[in-house]
Amino acid sequence: MIIVMKAGAAKKDRDEVLKRIKELGYKPHVIHGTTRDVIGAVGDERGKLVLQSIESMHGVENVLPILKPYKLASKEVKLEPSVIEISATVRIGGPEIIVMAGPCSVEGEAQIVETAEAVKAAGARVLRGGAFKPRTSPYSFQGLEEEGLKLLAKARALTGLPIVTEVVNPETAELVAEYADILQIGARNAQNFALLKKVGQLRKPVLLKRGMSMTIQEFLMSAEYVLAEGNQSVILCERGIRTFETATRNTLDLSAIPVLKEKTHLPVVVDPSHGTGDYHYVGPMALAAVAAGADGLIIEVHPDPERASSDGPQSLKPKKFATLMAQLKLVAESVGRTV
Amino acid sequence: MIIVMKAGAAKKDRDEVLKRIKELGYKPHVIHGTTRDVIGAVGDERGKLVLQSIESMHGVENVLPILKPYKLASKEVKLEPSVIEISATVRIGGPEIIVMAGPCSVEGEAQIVETAEAVKAAGARVLRGGAFKPRTSPYSFQGLEEEGLKLLAKARALTGLPIVTEVVNPETAELVAEYADILQIGARNAQNFALLKKVGQLRKPVLLKRGMSMTIQEFLMSAEYVLAEGNQSVILCERGIRTFETATRNTLDLSAIPVLKEKTHLPVVVDPSHGTGDYHYVGPMALAAVAAGADGLIIEVHPDPERASSDGPQSLKPKKFATLMAQLKLVAESVGRTV
Amino acid sequence: MIIVMKAGAAKKDRDEVLKRIKELGYKPHVIHGTTRDVIGAVGDERGKLVLQSIESMHGVENVLPILKPYKLASKEVKLEPSVIEISATVRIGGPEIIVMAGPCSVEGEAQIVETAEAVKAAGARVLRGGAFKPRTSPYSFQGLEEEGLKLLAKARALTGLPIVTEVVNPETAELVAEYADILQIGARNAQNFALLKKVGQLRKPVLLKRGMSMTIQEFLMSAEYVLAEGNQSVILCERGIRTFETATRNTLDLSAIPVLKEKTHLPVVVDPSHGTGDYHYVGPMALAAVAAGADGLIIEVHPDPERASSDGPQSLKPKKFATLMAQLKLVAESVGRTV
Amino acid sequence: MIIVMKAGAAKKDRDEVLKRIKELGYKPHVIHGTTRDVIGAVGDERGKLVLQSIESMHGVENVLPILKPYKLASKEVKLEPSVIEISATVRIGGPEIIVMAGPCSVEGEAQIVETAEAVKAAGARVLRGGAFKPRTSPYSFQGLEEEGLKLLAKARALTGLPIVTEVVNPETAELVAEYADILQIGARNAQNFALLKKVGQLRKPVLLKRGMSMTIQEFLMSAEYVLAEGNQSVILCERGIRTFETATRNTLDLSAIPVLKEKTHLPVVVDPSHGTGDYHYVGPMALAAVAAGADGLIIEVHPDPERASSDGPQSLKPKKFATLMAQLKLVAESVGRTV
Repeated sequence: MIIVMKAGAAKKDRDEVLKRIKELGYKPHVIHGTTRDVIGAVGDERGKLVLQSIESMHGVENVLPILKPYKLASKEVKLEPSVIEISATVRIGGPEIIVMAGPCSVEGEAQIVETAEAVKAAGARVLRGGAFKPRTSPYSFQGLEEEGLKLLAKARALTGLPIVTEVVNPETAELVAEYADILQIGARNAQNFALLKKVGQLRKPVLLKRGMSMTIQEFLMSAEYVLAEGNQSVILCERGIRTFETATRNTLDLSAIPVLKEKTHLPVVVDPSHGTGDYHYVGPMALAAVAAGADGLIIEVHPDPERASSDGPQSLKPKKFATLMAQLKLVAESVGRTV
Repeated sequence: MIIVMKAGAAKKDRDEVLKRIKELGYKPHVIHGTTRDVIGAVGDERGKLVLQSIESMHGVENVLPILKPYKLASKEVKLEPSVIEISATVRIGGPEIIVMAGPCSVEGEAQIVETAEAVKAAGARVLRGGAFKPRTSPYSFQGLEEEGLKLLAKARALTGLPIVTEVVNPETAELVAEYADILQIGARNAQNFALLKKVGQLRKPVLLKRGMSMTIQEFLMSAEYVLAEGNQSVILCERGIRTFETATRNTLDLSAIPVLKEKTHLPVVVDPSHGTGDYHYVGPMALAAVAAGADGLIIEVHPDPERASSDGPQSLKPKKFATLMAQLKLVAESVGRTV
Repeated sequence: MIIVMKAGAAKKDRDEVLKRIKELGYKPHVIHGTTRDVIGAVGDERGKLVLQSIESMHGVENVLPILKPYKLASKEVKLEPSVIEISATVRIGGPEIIVMAGPCSVEGEAQIVETAEAVKAAGARVLRGGAFKPRTSPYSFQGLEEEGLKLLAKARALTGLPIVTEVVNPETAELVAEYADILQIGARNAQNFALLKKVGQLRKPVLLKRGMSMTIQEFLMSAEYVLAEGNQSVILCERGIRTFETATRNTLDLSAIPVLKEKTHLPVVVDPSHGTGDYHYVGPMALAAVAAGADGLIIEVHPDPERASSDGPQSLKPKKFATLMAQLKLVAESVGRTV
Repeated sequence: MIIVMKAGAAKKDRDEVLKRIKELGYKPHVIHGTTRDVIGAVGDERGKLVLQSIESMHGVENVLPILKPYKLASKEVKLEPSVIEISATVRIGGPEIIVMAGPCSVEGEAQIVETAEAVKAAGARVLRGGAFKPRTSPYSFQGLEEEGLKLLAKARALTGLPIVTEVVNPETAELVAEYADILQIGARNAQNFALLKKVGQLRKPVLLKRGMSMTIQEFLMSAEYVLAEGNQSVILCERGIRTFETATRNTLDLSAIPVLKEKTHLPVVVDPSHGTGDYHYVGPMALAAVAAGADGLIIEVHPDPERASSDGPQSLKPKKFATLMAQLKLVAESVGRTV
């Protein structure tokens, strides 16, 4: 950590800072600058964020951290990319780009089975569908809950597709884990630390969505919560951040893909449906995500978007999805991957 | 709801939209414009967000909602301001501006009791202190948990100050409610709907912090979750939103005060400590919040910020807090309130 | 335009609004809702933004525009994509994806000529290079000015590559236009309307960068300024918007590509260098932009980035640029385009 | 400047960095950390931003600046607050809070004279009014130009109020300076460096508005452009930044007041009209700005906002403005200032 003293800070103030640094178990190192002193504090600063409190001391201008605050998620700990095994044939993080597809909400047996068969035929490898739905309004459809999980399991039995579905509450996490192959943490729960710890204790792969106003560093800190509980199977999902732009529901931050690839060994997938909020833009952004290096996609598909209980405007019809899969195949090949 | 058709949309498409609007139980009303048609759908659009799905239909450009999506929080339902009773002598939302103060985290008996006595002497009416701490890093101090709640209760017994403390998990919400006078929902849980429903079922006042990337409308929707469960005692807390500016930890959105006052009957308090992240700026922003019409403040005070387990840089020392209270009194009087 | 009255607004207030709408030359149309009235104002609302002023009237809740505020840039005026002719062989907006490349600043003859030859050899079709530099700091290198323009012209003479360079001041716009093949308007001048009008009067293609905090609608309004002066050759350039994320210099908004393609006939290019600010991320984002449908790219290339006068950290070395061009070729083909 | 090496960077890479630091005229200082080396580069880093280019070197993780990039605007150069003299009786930055008021646009003689007299009677000390208007749409009213300046001068002659009006183009800056007492640089031109240099050469006080997506540091850099040309009379104006919130036109960042007061000697005024975009919110935010320490306010007042050529929804009527002035007086006194 680097402590920047104010220009003209008193020697007494500097000495107090040096004393405090030593008290905290670090080795101080002073650089005398032209207008101010800068102090390096050598030692592992993670887990001791208390060092930040030095910012309150007299004569200190600011404190700059040097180390990244995450460990297990970082490439410094594990250089080779993690490959997460979902089933005997589905692995996320390898050369194959895994497409997960299905409706926003499970609405009934016909709907989920029909969709599962359609997305499988088009080449999807995982079925998505919400049973517990976190909705902005208490008056919106909240999901079929356990009944929805059972319908997802039925669709899996019929198609062989593993399922990804959302967990919204530590109290029902184990119930969801009985049915799901991948536990999804939604954007609004991305810093719900109680929930992150809970899924860290379950031994199922976790698809962690980036929160709407989360920096990439904070995103990795949330992954670290799951990893620190002993669950090494975390898949990161970029799904758009909140910005001033209103032409799209969120701003899909595709540059998060190369940034994450540089900083972490965990696989990265992209959700162009929530990322844009409009089915017209899903195709171009799905292709772009693959070109940028994503390991997978999660796409909303609904047989009748005009009558969907949620997120109709951003859902693709099965036929459009099949066309997109054909295009994805070509783009994937152009960057040396398969779909 | 207003449905805007595309310029030159086919009559067939418009007729499909009209048919669908009627199916959904609304009465359509067509306005023929110079380049396009616009359709009004008359009926209560709340709780039927499915209308939004019309955006997926052919020939539709976009769908504009007219009604606000919240009811119980709105002034259309209740015009006079809500006054939330915390104890026999403390009420939030009345002419007195209520100052809540205390450390970010409860760290030990001496610390919390000393702080409680100091903030009481300076004029604070509620004691704040975290026992369960939601921290960005799994390696940071996570709070004393139940032990912390007991220490808060002790400080209350000694000073008479009611206490506000955070709830982070539906599983421990009842435990916290046994001790706390006000249940705080933190910014990172502001759209943790499972937690909002839970505190809606408990019969304790709730201090709901605005999420970092929440619009004011979404903030009111989260309040609506608590209200819809039957708990009418919700206090809204502006604590800064996430923007591109890095000179402050968040950007304290004081314009949220008059906006909320126009839209809701619920009281509004401001947290200048998290809102700025720097104790130098806490005083000016506290004064500004009162001038703008806030009903209360929640301020971090720590006897030894340089040694605080969390949020040292934004905590005031008791002496600075007392000076601020004296200034607050003058500003409150200038706008016809008391502290 | 749609005028939403407040719930329970007086009949008198509504009648005043109706009267005012007629005064302004529109035909009003009232829809009686369950809790409030909504009034449609039929007529061309563009150029008469004064209608917005109705928002100040008693009993009015808000005013929603229906028409897009731009005309000449919109697809309603011109459906087929515009193809901008830069030279006998270079056209932007057609099947070929045009790559523009070169240094941030022109620093000297050897540097610009060497770079021009390298980027041409790799397949770039236009040379970029700044002679007048808008720099955040008055103490930073401000460009070689006319001398820089002459060096660009020399590099063009040697390589045959047309040149794109920035215009920063109406007073020097004509000078720049004597040398340049494309006039660039930088992000910081994207709402410098005096400059937009000036380049609208010159008869040279304009590369208009999106401002850092510009919505897509505002971006099109700035294009409209140039078009309205009679210059139809506008190329839109997405170069990243300002968000809370700090891992990248800006957040490259690739979803702007399909959004713009839906709304305008103008070609769209992407600047992954400024968009990310880090050469490690330029390649993936360039590939993604092409997959998403961009008509071109503008990329910073410098023979010695460690010694560049500006923007070294985001510049590619010629060898890395050549590798990227080979990858771009494959991705372009996968989406049916050429490079 | 601090150069952070990658964990495990080669000694060769570090030596290259040390060599380059010396070449650039700095003295390097190595701190050997537990996982990586950190190098301090001692010397004045301003004006040599080229040091940033070290970020491109092998083995370098990132480069952290220590010094603020502005000099003349900083408190390190001048500790006591600057007081800008506008006329014999009007000074901005002293104990008196200066209120500037008037219409968004000058529309005609009756309008500007009537408004000038009304705001003077209520206690305003400066008259604002736009003659050259930067409008988002080329089809909106662009101002009366020189005719508007003459009308402003007439209003000044009648009331004695000095006038502030906007400059939008270096070519017309001198013309505006012939009439105006304060030259305003609008938010959209806040990084129009050609214009900043031009007003830096004129000897009139400059009211510099913060750009919509400008950090406070960049804001001070724009002030530095004016100061560096020799014009020391710069007044900073916070007018709202662009965020995701849409309930207000911009998000007025009042915390910019204490932050600027800490970093610069220049006076700070606030524009609550553009900051909120809604006249209902102007009053509370004006009071808050004064409580937070602003040296002045600039407020839009129009005798007939429903018929204003621009910005009607955010303009106060003269009667409401007079009421606000009475409240401002009380709040100003409560913080030891006058209005």
